[in-house]
Amino acid sequence: MQFKLHHTDQKSDARAGTITTDHGKINTPIFMPVGTIGTVKGVHQAELKEQVKAQIILGNTYHLYLRPGMETMEAAGGLHKFMNWNGPILTDSGGYQVFSLAHRRKITEEGATFASHIDGSRHLFSPESSLGIQRSIGADIVMAFDECPPYPSTREYAKNSMDLTHRWLERCVTFMNETSPKYGHSQALFPIVQGSSFDDLRTKSCEFIASQDQPGNAIGGLSVGEPIEDMYRISKLCCDVLPKDKPRYLMGVGTPANIIECISRGVDMFDCVLPSRNARHGVIYTRNGIMNMKNAKWRTDFSPIDDRPDAAPTSQTHTKAYLAHLFRVGELLGPQLATLHNLAFYLSLVTEAREHIIEGDFADWAASVLPGLERKL
Amino acid sequence: MQFKLHHTDQKSDARAGTITTDHGKINTPIFMPVGTIGTVKGVHQAELKEQVKAQIILGNTYHLYLRPGMETMEAAGGLHKFMNWNGPILTDSGGYQVFSLAHRRKITEEGATFASHIDGSRHLFSPESSLGIQRSIGADIVMAFDECPPYPSTREYAKNSMDLTHRWLERCVTFMNETSPKYGHSQALFPIVQGSSFDDLRTKSCEFIASQDQPGNAIGGLSVGEPIEDMYRISKLCCDVLPKDKPRYLMGVGTPANIIECISRGVDMFDCVLPSRNARHGVIYTRNGIMNMKNAKWRTDFSPIDDRPDAAPTSQTHTKAYLAHLFRVGELLGPQLATLHNLAFYLSLVTEAREHIIEGDFADWAASVLPGLERKL
Ligand SMILES: [Zn+2]
Ligand SMILES: [Zn+2]
Repeated sequence: MQFKLHHTDQKSDARAGTITTDHGKINTPIFMPVGTIGTVKGVHQAELKEQVKAQIILGNTYHLYLRPGMETMEAAGGLHKFMNWNGPILTDSGGYQVFSLAHRRKITEEGATFASHIDGSRHLFSPESSLGIQRSIGADIVMAFDECPPYPSTREYAKNSMDLTHRWLERCVTFMNETSPKYGHSQALFPIVQGSSFDDLRTKSCEFIASQDQPGNAIGGLSVGEPIEDMYRISKLCCDVLPKDKPRYLMGVGTPANIIECISRGVDMFDCVLPSRNARHGVIYTRNGIMNMKNAKWRTDFSPIDDRPDAAPTSQTHTKAYLAHLFRVGELLGPQLATLHNLAFYLSLVTEAREHIIEGDFADWAASVLPGLERKL
Repeated sequence: MQFKLHHTDQKSDARAGTITTDHGKINTPIFMPVGTIGTVKGVHQAELKEQVKAQIILGNTYHLYLRPGMETMEAAGGLHKFMNWNGPILTDSGGYQVFSLAHRRKITEEGATFASHIDGSRHLFSPESSLGIQRSIGADIVMAFDECPPYPSTREYAKNSMDLTHRWLERCVTFMNETSPKYGHSQALFPIVQGSSFDDLRTKSCEFIASQDQPGNAIGGLSVGEPIEDMYRISKLCCDVLPKDKPRYLMGVGTPANIIECISRGVDMFDCVLPSRNARHGVIYTRNGIMNMKNAKWRTDFSPIDDRPDAAPTSQTHTKAYLAHLFRVGELLGPQLATLHNLAFYLSLVTEAREHIIEGDFADWAASVLPGLERKL
């Protein structure tokens, strides 16, 4: 994996770059749709490419490990072939789902033991096993196994957790150095900054993470319930310490406004379930504001869902009234159209942000779009 | 609406023709996907056109009447515009859903009163109101309001019901003659043959229906639980009586094998929820047989879902293992891929049937494909 930084904004810390993987290029800043369990819910792979214009998607190690399992995954030749997606893929470490989804979890120096939320079977995720699984999945970018402390955490808990994450990181790096990819394409490890909402811990964590000199770096433990000002402050603090010549990935963020704000603080990569999950509940993002398609007022609005030329093609050809009807009657096509819309919207937003970073007027553009992004329609 | 009969098979009664509507041509024999409530479940309109290669779709008058309702439908400019489908549409009369879905129904000479299955509100469907609603929906082909007798029915019930259906048909014809389409394109009325499984009633019904000299004719009251031999015998009996120069539509039929058998008896048009409903439950039709994707044996089969060049594109690019995984984990993409597959399969089957009718070897071809269509894999 290579990263080339093209432009940094004059009035902000926004950056435009290009990541090159063995499965293609990614223009940053970028939003990565979440394909939890080998599918971005409700979206065909061709639609992801042609309509959403996704450049990279996420897979969740925890889910893929449980089903289909690594025997099937390896027999398929990895996730790219299993799901027929030939663009770049990033996998998380599985740690987040262990802490948020699995049962009877226990953290030790070795790793985390847990019971599957599906059948109660017991498993161990460690730095080595997480990356072993990610080798079997074959993502282009793999994440270090970390502990994401709950919010709020005491300083002591946050410090101990951070130290553990750092020790685990050293084991991740060793594992990556001592093993090879399984499918002929390379895999880049991204370490994860932790430290909760304590600025000094965050600074220390960034310095340690940077010292490992991996191809990219991630900021974890945010968007977990902290005040939004904390998220913005810590994102900036981390971007100020993390090396400029490597991409910075802010995990699990966020709303369209969050993304613009964090791009301006120096973040290059984002993922979030918000656009797809909210879409399934009828919530649609546009440049003019947020619409809840379950609201009866849309049922007689025969204007397009979104008539911007960079909106999803189906948002330009279908009306708000039709989409509202589909949600009212509980038809599958409602979540399908809404998901296509929101994901295409996120991608068009980061794409235009990038254009304005390159043109040199990002800060003005960001200020002009933020009010619309947060408006409720 | 015009119908041109191109070929009739020498060894069977199979026919190849073309129906021309104001929204385009339909090559017969044809299968019409069911778009119950303004959407073919799980399928985008562009996919219907480009991947399924649907030439005409169905809408259900009962469902569309209740939601979105005719005020919204007319404000949208009819169903074509409401759902953004510019190909031909056929609507049923609503009678079938009144008898199968609505509550507290009562049949009188005037029509059928019923309570909505959604909110219990009371409504009347009559020949005039059903066709008035179908005028508001704006389908290219509209169906006469009939009574579909339950199976089995006594001869007396079937005769009285048939006579009522015939009296209602005269009112339908009068209503169509005295009213105009609402959206500038023409609407063709298809009367419906009834008479349950009584051959003499069926013959009489066909003669009466034919005497009304409408642009096409439909055979109703089959595929309601009767033995398959009855369905085949009555289909043939009706086709033998109904005029040759008009399309014949067998309502609600059926499996791929049923369709081949009924094409060979002279039927030109089919609709059925079977391919799409079964798809949502993981049942896939192929030329080699029927697969249940919930069966664990498919989870490690990395061959394409269907590698025939006329299969849905996604069936050629995705594996059985992937589709089985999607059904196992309950992901939306499973029903989406399976529905695309089955509908494209039905369309490819009737398309190839038509080619063989034109080439003159339909009967041999039908005999060669039937065993595969009915095999369980
Ligand atoms: Zn712009
Ligand atoms: Zn052939």
